[in-house]
Formats: sequence, structure tokens, C-alpha cells
Amino acid sequence: SSYSEHPHQLNSKVDAFLESLKWDEKGLMVAIAQNVDTGAIMMQGFINKEALAKTISSQKATFYSRSRSSLWTKGETSTNFIHVIDIFFDCDLDSVIYLGKPDGPSCHTGSETCYFLSMSDVLRDPQAIEHRLALTTLYSLENIISQRRDEVVTSAKPSWTKRLLNDAELLCSKVREEAEELVQTVVEKEDSLRTASEMADLLYHAMVLLSLKNVKLEQVFEVLRNRFSQSGIDEKNSRRR
Amino acid sequence: SSYSEHPHQLNSKVDAFLESLKWDEKGLMVAIAQNVDTGAIMMQGFINKEALAKTISSQKATFYSRSRSSLWTKGETSTNFIHVIDIFFDCDLDSVIYLGKPDGPSCHTGSETCYFLSMSDVLRDPQAIEHRLALTTLYSLENIISQRRDEVVTSAKPSWTKRLLNDAELLCSKVREEAEELVQTVVEKEDSLRTASEMADLLYHAMVLLSLKNVKLEQVFEVLRNRFSQSGIDEKNSRRR
Ligand SMILES: [Zn+2]
Ligand SMILES: [Zn+2]
Ligand SMILES: [Zn+2]
Ligand SMILES: [Zn+2]
Ligand SMILES: [Zn+2]
Ligand SMILES: [Zn+2]
Ligand SMILES: [Zn+2]
Ligand SMILES: [Zn+2]
Ligand SMILES: [Zn+2]
Repeated sequence: SSYSEHPHQLNSKVDAFLESLKWDEKGLMVAIAQNVDTGAIMMQGFINKEALAKTISSQKATFYSRSRSSLWTKGETSTNFIHVIDIFFDCDLDSVIYLGKPDGPSCHTGSETCYFLSMSDVLRDPQAIEHRLALTTLYSLENIISQRRDEVVTSAKPSWTKRLLNDAELLCSKVREEAEELVQTVVEKEDSLRTASEMADLLYHAMVLLSLKNVKLEQVFEVLRNRFSQSGIDEKNSRRR
Repeated sequence: SSYSEHPHQLNSKVDAFLESLKWDEKGLMVAIAQNVDTGAIMMQGFINKEALAKTISSQKATFYSRSRSSLWTKGETSTNFIHVIDIFFDCDLDSVIYLGKPDGPSCHTGSETCYFLSMSDVLRDPQAIEHRLALTTLYSLENIISQRRDEVVTSAKPSWTKRLLNDAELLCSKVREEAEELVQTVVEKEDSLRTASEMADLLYHAMVLLSLKNVKLEQVFEVLRNRFSQSGIDEKNSRRR
């Protein structure tokens, strides 16, 4: 039966497992909340055994506050819970990832994640503190495209992204063309570098199309997760039934 | 001039910034190493001010070992360095992300990342410990496709993924078809849910093609990063020149 249906019945083997983890001298370890669809690191806190047990049973990311010496569930005040889909431990069992889906922005400041101050900005000017999220490659590109969309064109030569956004017919023909070029790397048995490059072309142009339609990559990945998800506590349990 | 050209000349303003961070009572904070292209959390360690300063100057992820009371640069023994592209601080300045590119597997076990034990597997059977990486949606799908590719078909009805992998002509026509369906959501002014769904179709089929050509998503994102990268210490510096 599902573990989460019996939040207070900690299986003694699971309990022994939790005991066996490498808690520090204060009984704590690091917990990192990561967005299951985008991979964004949303926040980092600390957990004790009770916080971990509560996260497992409630499937909501729960931490231990070192300043208040108490458990707290992310979202209990903001209602932006993080729904934990699976939990991963590191090789020496002293650090965990809460892989989950947030209901909304994770930071109390309203920022999507807590990590929005970059060292490269500080190096440029330690006084001028900008807000810039830690973005991995794909989201960095998504961000660039969305900046282009919002910018007012003043120059006679707008960026390629802007031209595509202003000309849906051109954009559509480029998406078709790049799909065909990707396919041709199979037909013509071209090398894998060529395939990677054509896939990059296709992805970029398809992302411009998503921007035009106001669709975020995160929504696309959510669709994929709902179709293909194989992991997660629920699914594992359902597989056993 | 580039900060990294003068590793020992810590700008006094930057030094004041490092001082202003919320170091704990032992002078430490949490550092999370994240793959800039895939978003995978590779490992988590602790840093002191010196470790952070060394990471900034060397652009190689450096930590403080609490057990050995000394600095260590990831890769100094394995040669699998993590090349740090940018560093992000969280909202209360007591946690950092090293956003970087690894030279190879991050874990001393040879695993790509240190997080490869899942709670859902433990819940199924606390004794049987499998190796399963913490994968976000896209990489989870990449993994499913690669499992399908490697599986020997015994049933009369192979999976759709397997059928595509065994029939390049079918696969190519599906990629073309899904690109066309994505484009049609623009032409026919369909709603954004439709666009997200068609993008998911296109991505999945294109990923099967990548698998057929032995191309990893990470390679594609590396291509995109090299084309579009706007952030990072180097780029920021070059923009100022
Ligand atoms: Zn560890
Ligand atoms: Zn919720
Ligand atoms: Zn925050
Ligand atoms: Zn082309
Ligand atoms: Zn192309
Ligand atoms: Zn913090
Ligand atoms: Zn290297
Ligand atoms: Zn490890
Ligand atoms: Zn379709």
C-alpha cells in the first residue's frame, strides 16, 4: 500500500534507513529543493530526521529552521508548497535533493528561486546589485528570446529573433526547414556533431515559436512528465499493486 | 581587465562583499555544484571565504573539507575539474550555486553525479539499493528512450519508441509531421495548451532521433550555450572592454 496513506506508520526498515544517514553533530543535513521539470535549484535549507520523515509522509518539502529550532513546511505561510516527487541522497548520505514541483515562487521575496545574485554582476560593480536568476543554458536562451520579444526595435537591423517574432510566416518556414535539416542528418548519415547542431537550430526556432505563443518550456516539460513519468513514490507504489 | 588574470588582487570592494556574506559560526556556507547545461546537481560541499575566493580566481570549483580542515579543488586528484562559469548567492547570502561545466563524472564512485540513491527505491525495499540518478523530466525521458534502445524486443508489440528506433523512415516522417503540427498551432491560432502539447510531441520524436544518432541532449545544449551565452564572468568582462 502507499507509504503516503500511512504517514505515521514509519516502516521500521525505513526508520532504520533514516537512522543510518550521516546526520551532523547537530542531527542535521543539507536539503536542496530542485524543480523536477526545469532543474532550477529553488532553495536550500537544513533538515533533521523529523523534517525528512514529514516530507516523506506529507510529500511537501519540509525543513528544520536552525534559528527557530523548529520544523517548517515550505508554503505553510505563502501557500507556495513544493510537492516532492522523489528524494535523492548523495554518495556519503549527508545531503539530499527534494525533487519537486512548486506551486509558485519559492522565495519570500517573490522571486522564482532564492538564487538571484550573481558573482559576475558583483565583480562588475559590487554596489549595483541586479536581480538575475541562476539559469542553466536552455532557460538562459528562453530568457534571451523573451527579452528580444519585449524590446522595442529602434535600429534598422533588428536581431534575428526579433525578425522571426515579427514575421510568423518566416518563423514557421524556419521551423519546418530546421526539422528537415535535422532529419537529413539521418537520411544522409551525417556525423553526430551535425545532428547536435541541427537539433540546436530546431530547438532555438521552436523556442521562438513558443515565445510567440506565450508558452514556457516548463509547461512543455510538464506535459512530457505526465506522459512519461516512471519514477516517483506514487508510481513506484502503483507498480507494486 | 579580467578578474581571473589577477587571481591574487582581490579588489577591496569584492573583498568587502565576501566579508558581508552570512558565514556560519564556523565561517562556512553550503555550496552546490550544478551543471550549467543540464541543470544536474553534481555534488554539494561547504566553502569558507578562502575557498570562494579561490573558486573566483581559478574558475575551478573549490570547497573546504570539514574533516580535513583544508581547501580542496574538485578534480585535483581525479582531474575531473568543474569549470565554474558563474556563481549565484541566495536571498539571505548563506548558500551558493557553482554553475559550471564538469570535465567528467563528479562522484568519486565514477557516477555522473553524487545523487544516485532514491527514497522511492528505499521505500520499495530498504535492503535492495539500486543506482538511479536524480534526473529531471527531460533527462528522465532521455533515459527512458535509451533504455528502450538497448532492450531486446521479445514481445510481438514493441514500444512506440522501439518501433521508431527500428524504422528510420518512420522516425523521420514523424519528426517532419510533428514540426508541421507545431507550426499549425500558429497558423490556425490554436491555444497555448495545444502548442505545449505539439512541442512535447516534437521534442520526444527529435530526442528519439538524437538517441539513434548517439547524441546527448547535453551536447545540444552546449552548442546553444556557445552560440547564445550572455552571462558568465568572462563574457561580462569582455563586454566592458
Ligand atoms: Zn555528501
Ligand atoms: Zn499545492
Ligand atoms: Zn529566498
Ligand atoms: Zn537552415
Ligand atoms: Zn539548420
Ligand atoms: Zn539561505
Ligand atoms: Zn578541465
Ligand atoms: Zn559522490
Ligand atoms: Zn502532434
